[in-house]
Amino acid sequence: MQNIIAAISTPPGKGGVAIIRVSGEGAHELTSRIFRPASGRSLLDYPTRHAVYGYILHRGERIDDGIVTLFERGASYTGEPVAEISCHGGMLISRTVLEAVLAAGATLAGAGEFTRRAFINGRLTLTEAEAIGLLLEAKSEEQIRLTAAPARDRLKKEIEEIRASLTALLGSIYARIDYPDEDLGDFSDEETVSELTRVRADVSRLISTYRTGRAIAEGISAVICGKPNVGKSTLYNLISGEDAAIVTDIPGTTRDVLERSLPLGRVMLRLSDTAGIREGAGDDPVEKIGIEKSREKISSAELILALFDLSRPLDSDDRDIIEEIRGAGGAKICILTKADRDSVLDLTELPDIFDATLKISAKEEECEALSTLSDAINRLFTDEKISTSTDAVVASARQHSALLRAKELIDTAILAYSAGLPQDAASSDIELALGAVAEIDGRAVAESVTDDIFSRFCVGK
Amino acid sequence: MQNIIAAISTPPGKGGVAIIRVSGEGAHELTSRIFRPASGRSLLDYPTRHAVYGYILHRGERIDDGIVTLFERGASYTGEPVAEISCHGGMLISRTVLEAVLAAGATLAGAGEFTRRAFINGRLTLTEAEAIGLLLEAKSEEQIRLTAAPARDRLKKEIEEIRASLTALLGSIYARIDYPDEDLGDFSDEETVSELTRVRADVSRLISTYRTGRAIAEGISAVICGKPNVGKSTLYNLISGEDAAIVTDIPGTTRDVLERSLPLGRVMLRLSDTAGIREGAGDDPVEKIGIEKSREKISSAELILALFDLSRPLDSDDRDIIEEIRGAGGAKICILTKADRDSVLDLTELPDIFDATLKISAKEEECEALSTLSDAINRLFTDEKISTSTDAVVASARQHSALLRAKELIDTAILAYSAGLPQDAASSDIELALGAVAEIDGRAVAESVTDDIFSRFCVGK
Repeated sequence: MQNIIAAISTPPGKGGVAIIRVSGEGAHELTSRIFRPASGRSLLDYPTRHAVYGYILHRGERIDDGIVTLFERGASYTGEPVAEISCHGGMLISRTVLEAVLAAGATLAGAGEFTRRAFINGRLTLTEAEAIGLLLEAKSEEQIRLTAAPARDRLKKEIEEIRASLTALLGSIYARIDYPDEDLGDFSDEETVSELTRVRADVSRLISTYRTGRAIAEGISAVICGKPNVGKSTLYNLISGEDAAIVTDIPGTTRDVLERSLPLGRVMLRLSDTAGIREGAGDDPVEKIGIEKSREKISSAELILALFDLSRPLDSDDRDIIEEIRGAGGAKICILTKADRDSVLDLTELPDIFDATLKISAKEEECEALSTLSDAINRLFTDEKISTSTDAVVASARQHSALLRAKELIDTAILAYSAGLPQDAASSDIELALGAVAEIDGRAVAESVTDDIFSRFCVGK
Repeated sequence: MQNIIAAISTPPGKGGVAIIRVSGEGAHELTSRIFRPASGRSLLDYPTRHAVYGYILHRGERIDDGIVTLFERGASYTGEPVAEISCHGGMLISRTVLEAVLAAGATLAGAGEFTRRAFINGRLTLTEAEAIGLLLEAKSEEQIRLTAAPARDRLKKEIEEIRASLTALLGSIYARIDYPDEDLGDFSDEETVSELTRVRADVSRLISTYRTGRAIAEGISAVICGKPNVGKSTLYNLISGEDAAIVTDIPGTTRDVLERSLPLGRVMLRLSDTAGIREGAGDDPVEKIGIEKSREKISSAELILALFDLSRPLDSDDRDIIEEIRGAGGAKICILTKADRDSVLDLTELPDIFDATLKISAKEEECEALSTLSDAINRLFTDEKISTSTDAVVASARQHSALLRAKELIDTAILAYSAGLPQDAASSDIELALGAVAEIDGRAVAESVTDDIFSRFCVGK
């Protein structure tokens, strides 16, 4: 039997309210020992889901007043009996309430343990748990849409449908192998191939959403480069300005390269602020390391924002930068700065290596410049036809690679059928494909297939 | 009519759960517009205090799933209709849910506005609100005891009793003044004086708890001083070690004087870590400022912990420190360090200015040294007979000064009676005393006295 776990579920720090969550067999009884309803009745006399006001006791003393709500088994976050204690939100007071719960016999919950239990008890699939993890970290509205309950439901449903189709296919094949004399299989060979092809198309469609899902969830690694005073910080401020308040610094490997996650349209940019290639190219070893790091960032970035000054002719600094980015694998956007001044730069001198070109100006209406840039980047990295509001979107590398594996195995099974190989050969590929799909949601495979097979027998057989 | 206010009530940051509180006339209806129960029913179909699972909507989209509990008027924190929305605890997701509530017509709550409404609606007195403010900041168990619900109730009750006694007295006096021919007054002159004396004793008793309450709540300003290497950091670590995790730095005015709030026994020490008086007494102006700050701290501290090295004879550095602290007003504790080495210091050379003397050693059992120090400090600054678990304790300067004023006015009233002055003179003093007491809990005075007077008349008169 699982022990009773407890933790402060609200963020750490000072607030008006804190929630201590208690979960496990006996959580209601345990909580009733440290909580005395103001009515004088026992907490256990109240129906579940009722907010009961009363006093929290520790070492015989009333340490706080608060509200307890009990959730019954099967209707709680974890699927186990749960008690949620809402107390005052001070640092020490919420800890002391937690201590009271631990003293009454609960164990401190480990990181993610409530969600792990929800998964074990079938309240959440792995895709849902992954989405909730991202939801808690969400920095953009699009990330919220991608991970909110309806999106989680859609993805879960699509994966369940694929799983169900493969299970039905496999059950039919097994039945035909094991009981060749009885007419148990639902599908003929031709029907099996046609059904496999249909499932393959569903898997492919899900796989194709990953590019967009990843750009939204994980983000695009991007660098800004350009010679000194070309307007790098103007661009940086333009991008970061809108949502500066919810931006978090991710410490980089050196002082010179910091990475920030910034929402831009639908995607997140993981933007490195690199030192210019030509900046401080002296003999200083520290500067040399900084420049080396910038070069590495440029060569590994998925998106390079290269800035050129429209008001000045192309110079050797610009040419160095062009050479630096020419061989890089990432998408390249040419950004012409100082568009409010006289245009001097000869645009024909710029090589044809850019996926898009746009102009910005410190004086121009900023929102317009930003939306032009945002549109260009979103066109490059997402599929407009995919909507996080209505489609199932894959956003996790783990899910993506499992789907790729499943697709490959379905291909092999189709080939096996086409080559007229024995059922056994195809069935083992389908079984592995089913395994890959089941893995996405963390389901055990063997039983469901077994169940499916035996459910095809008549009662009493 | 009050508008509907809303705010995130849990601490800022990332956690599993966040609570958005919505309060005001129409809060239930407003919340029902952005929350769709998973059952498909309306939120308003559910009884209050029932935890309803469902989806939170913003701009027509389901942005999160969560639980809403409605609290009815008169049975909520604020006394108004309240909705508590429990959603996922990410920074942006909780903000987005708040935005949905604001978009539906709520106003962002100002700091303390829920509690202010609770006060206005008579759900909380001012003493209770003050105690809750301290509870949220509490850094010691004793602070929690001082501010927990039972302690809040005790203080509220004692103040209400004093108020009721003064109101009854005043009602009786007014009745005798206004209707001298009718036998309306409950108290004769002698009885009035005796009753005033009894109330005065109650007020005095409450006033006497403030020294202890303040040491627990606000804390004692303390400094550690001593020559270089005498063991200042050993002592500092000894005091801070126990609860280092919940300690907060309060930035000082200079780098040299930092103040930390550390619980020690019942009291909080607001401990300044001063540079030694003789340390770096060179010509460096920055160091001079540091030394000047240290001197100011010593002269204004309520407690001076002066350290002397037992293993070395008294030297000129020690004598400088003794001169520095001799004139200071705070309590002084002499702490003899390095007690594990040979004792060389001639104790007769130490002046008789210390309230307590104790020894510590880096090698000694640390807990024992700490409890000796803690006992000495607690004896100096608190009254052992006062228990935060069973007594009403005043911990706010505001409450204390109102009680002092009340006591003075009661004294004046008693003198007026003794001097045989007309009832009017005494009654205006008692009225002012009642005002001072009523102010403690933020009550309006006039009406209650009026009510009290008219309740003495028979029905129909």
